[in-house]
Amino acid sequence: MNNFEYKAPTKLIFGKNTIEKLKDEIPKNKKILLTYGGGSIRKNGVYKKVMDALKDHTVMEFGGIEPNPKYETLMQAVEIVKRENIDFLLAVGGGSTLDGTKFIAAAAKFEGEDPWDILSKGAQIKDAIPLADVITLPATGSEMNPGAVISKLETNEKFAFHSPFVYPVFSIIDPETTYSLPEKQTVNGIVDTFVHTMEQYATYDVNTPLQDEWMLGLIKTLMVEAKKVLKNPNDYDARANVFWCATCGLNYWMSLGCAQDWSTHMIGHELTALYGIDHGESLAIVLTRVWKNRKCDKMEKLAKMAIEVFGANEFLPKNILADITIKKTKKFFESLGRRTKLADYGIDKQEAAKKISQRFKERNISLGEKGNIGPDEVHEILMHC
Amino acid sequence: MNNFEYKAPTKLIFGKNTIEKLKDEIPKNKKILLTYGGGSIRKNGVYKKVMDALKDHTVMEFGGIEPNPKYETLMQAVEIVKRENIDFLLAVGGGSTLDGTKFIAAAAKFEGEDPWDILSKGAQIKDAIPLADVITLPATGSEMNPGAVISKLETNEKFAFHSPFVYPVFSIIDPETTYSLPEKQTVNGIVDTFVHTMEQYATYDVNTPLQDEWMLGLIKTLMVEAKKVLKNPNDYDARANVFWCATCGLNYWMSLGCAQDWSTHMIGHELTALYGIDHGESLAIVLTRVWKNRKCDKMEKLAKMAIEVFGANEFLPKNILADITIKKTKKFFESLGRRTKLADYGIDKQEAAKKISQRFKERNISLGEKGNIGPDEVHEILMHC
Repeated sequence: MNNFEYKAPTKLIFGKNTIEKLKDEIPKNKKILLTYGGGSIRKNGVYKKVMDALKDHTVMEFGGIEPNPKYETLMQAVEIVKRENIDFLLAVGGGSTLDGTKFIAAAAKFEGEDPWDILSKGAQIKDAIPLADVITLPATGSEMNPGAVISKLETNEKFAFHSPFVYPVFSIIDPETTYSLPEKQTVNGIVDTFVHTMEQYATYDVNTPLQDEWMLGLIKTLMVEAKKVLKNPNDYDARANVFWCATCGLNYWMSLGCAQDWSTHMIGHELTALYGIDHGESLAIVLTRVWKNRKCDKMEKLAKMAIEVFGANEFLPKNILADITIKKTKKFFESLGRRTKLADYGIDKQEAAKKISQRFKERNISLGEKGNIGPDEVHEILMHC
Repeated sequence: MNNFEYKAPTKLIFGKNTIEKLKDEIPKNKKILLTYGGGSIRKNGVYKKVMDALKDHTVMEFGGIEPNPKYETLMQAVEIVKRENIDFLLAVGGGSTLDGTKFIAAAAKFEGEDPWDILSKGAQIKDAIPLADVITLPATGSEMNPGAVISKLETNEKFAFHSPFVYPVFSIIDPETTYSLPEKQTVNGIVDTFVHTMEQYATYDVNTPLQDEWMLGLIKTLMVEAKKVLKNPNDYDARANVFWCATCGLNYWMSLGCAQDWSTHMIGHELTALYGIDHGESLAIVLTRVWKNRKCDKMEKLAKMAIEVFGANEFLPKNILADITIKKTKKFFESLGRRTKLADYGIDKQEAAKKISQRFKERNISLGEKGNIGPDEVHEILMHC
């Protein structure tokens, strides 16, 4: 096991009818900016529940945060925060709204010249406006981690940042809010959760059997519960189980002491930035192609997964077992209705391979748990997508 | 899944050579009371490492905290804390030292008349001295939870208390510190971890497949890694894996949203209080007898465990599967050299059954996840021990 450190101050409030707890979780003297996305919260009743709970608070609003939240949009909110002396941010919606709100929180207190430096140059964050959330989409795990991913329209770039200052003070998860999700978003969230777990699991083995049990246990659970929510969107327990998988998929509990990959996300972010496909779509395209390319590095873990998750015969050669995991994972994505080729989205793989490998070359970045996925490997991976 | 709330502010620092991090984790202006137990930390080098790391800090010492830490001893430390204006407590040792230190932290700031009320009457804790630990025994999980168990010599009582104020600020775990543990303590810790997990797992089913995967995954890991540490006490990875099992066994991550039992602990505490047997010994005696007594309530979970952990045939009747888990669990404890009958420790079961059921009757307490283990059931359980 590798050495590790872990600290996460977020209070998690999970279950039915938990939105009403907002009234006690945010001090009455706070001036709140409620942030949200495209307005689905007005249709599904979440907005009303939030405003009812906050009827004795001072609340301003900022809507219109996009999927893959845009720097340009978020900077408008930063202006409002500064002008109105907002001292608490409440994100209501999915991971994009929450990620965007984390950026607003950090940018509003940023002392440097251009808050985009937080993303493009890893500029240090020394403070942030306190933030919390009512999270309504099981996917990003943002509700219990210190990270966010932000895009810039002007340059078609998409970057992540991490800071302990943007841990939510609290996160409220009411699985009933997910009943009305469009199937496409439900599927994107399931794929995202699957891939988050795999970025932490499918690496080299540092002798972490408990962590492996947890991560593979999450995948087994997710595969069963995903089918249930797609069949019956109002199955409370299945919705709760899928949400808990999503949160645990990226709160890092499962993988403390393990190596981590994240190359699928890095390549996927470029696909989203350049071609506008959904995050979940990009991941379903890239994951198994990274595995094929790095099969030797990931052999032990992929083979273990074939036995534990897909019931493969443990006496098969590891090479074959790894192939089983690759094939079954692709099949699982397809069983959710998710297409897994660039061509399915009208993207020319040669162009994508050339553009994206060039971007990594310019940034001088190598990906993966061993840092051995350079621009050439990215090119090769995308040529197989 | 049941509704739940979760928040734990402790920073965990895990791995080789982590004790030296003490120097940066405790502010230099703090006046520290270093608390410890019987002095094993002077023999195994931990004391020296701690003092080297704190050479620029002001450190006083309080040694002699017993296993099953005693109120009478701890109140001497409370006097020192008050007299010397101590403003940081550092527990170095096992769960007893840490539990005792949690009580010192709370008692030193207690505003009521008698700090024993915290334990016997659940008197409210409104503040505590900040505390942290270098934990050297994988067992209680105290390093990442807000609970402690304290005994009173005068009355032969043993009670638990919980308060968010006694979460450690940080906990340092260096698995190498466990190389020199006496085998008996290693085994006690393994049994404690096993039973903590079962108190959270073996209840009624509220449809929590992810939590079940984690808890059974922990048991599977523990059973494999326990054998390794007993065979080779200096196996770093096995020691690290056992320690991580112990910490996760009682930081509540695995069981959020599940029902919980804790009757084995409640009965075990009485055995320790009255007869002085180790905590781990008491648990190995009681657990499977509680299961036999409440087999109908716990049938689903015990049957699932037989299949998942002990490889039993899933087509067997649940009743038989539950019996397999009961039998195999007892065998596992025995394989560690742990005796599982009261008579093995020279305790008369009739006397124990009478005294302990009487105690629960006086306190008007019923135990278990359904609150249906009353004094009569406690009597019956102990008569089978």
